[in-house]
Amino acid sequence: MSVLTFDPAPADKKALEEGTVFTPRFDAGGLVTAVVTDAADGKVLMVAHMNDEALALTLETGVAHYWSRSRKALWKKGETSGNVQRVVEMLTDCDQDAVWLRVNVLGHDATCHTGRRSCFYRTVGIGNGKVTLAGDGSEPLFDADETYRKHS
Amino acid sequence: MSVLTFDPAPADKKALEEGTVFTPRFDAGGLVTAVVTDAADGKVLMVAHMNDEALALTLETGVAHYWSRSRKALWKKGETSGNVQRVVEMLTDCDQDAVWLRVNVLGHDATCHTGRRSCFYRTVGIGNGKVTLAGDGSEPLFDADETYRKHS
Repeated sequence: MSVLTFDPAPADKKALEEGTVFTPRFDAGGLVTAVVTDAADGKVLMVAHMNDEALALTLETGVAHYWSRSRKALWKKGETSGNVQRVVEMLTDCDQDAVWLRVNVLGHDATCHTGRRSCFYRTVGIGNGKVTLAGDGSEPLFDADETYRKHS
Repeated sequence: MSVLTFDPAPADKKALEEGTVFTPRFDAGGLVTAVVTDAADGKVLMVAHMNDEALALTLETGVAHYWSRSRKALWKKGETSGNVQRVVEMLTDCDQDAVWLRVNVLGHDATCHTGRRSCFYRTVGIGNGKVTLAGDGSEPLFDADETYRKHS
């Protein structure tokens, strides 16, 4: 269980934007958005969500925890795959409804459940009036089917 | 007005994750999350949201458009400040509910409405059992109060 708690966001906009107290602005579902980048080269690895407990556990342990919206459960990233994220730095944005985690990825250095390093492995483009996706060439770094089958 | 439209997401998970058709998975509010980084050095500049029209306009014009949740309006980034974002590349993630925009910022090279380059200008830390914020030293690159007052 987490110990840290968060104060409610101040009504004053300047206090929210320029203050020194972390008062995350959880949305109607109790979540803030988390952007995760590799601390070494800045690559965007994933976008996820955190509730108050995931945020507190991440700060307390230095290991990234999220809230899985699909599974409706607290999610210690890498618990199954070994691809744990050690947090080097956490930042928040001007209105404190998002956090940016700079992490080192352990295990296979893969963040995506497809086995790839990043969840962002397809570029979006327009061709013949259609919006299409093209792979960026990144390949799985571990056998995701095998890994998750063992634990399902 | 935008012209592009998006097909509904396929029920098949493999098609969603490995396919070549962009089928953004808008949330209950009709939005996807957008992470924006500087194409030059990869710095995370902001997190915002896009509805179908913002996404279509961004793809059609090459200039970033968002949906402002606070103003409940389409928002061409930089329309007031001049800090327009030219999109170098757009990527989507495995389950297509987020996009990553790599951009060049025009104007003052500032993305945050506080005048700073990035909205993420404070690090989160723990001190004496409290969660505190510390500025990362970034200063406003333009006079935000003056700029937005003229247009309010």
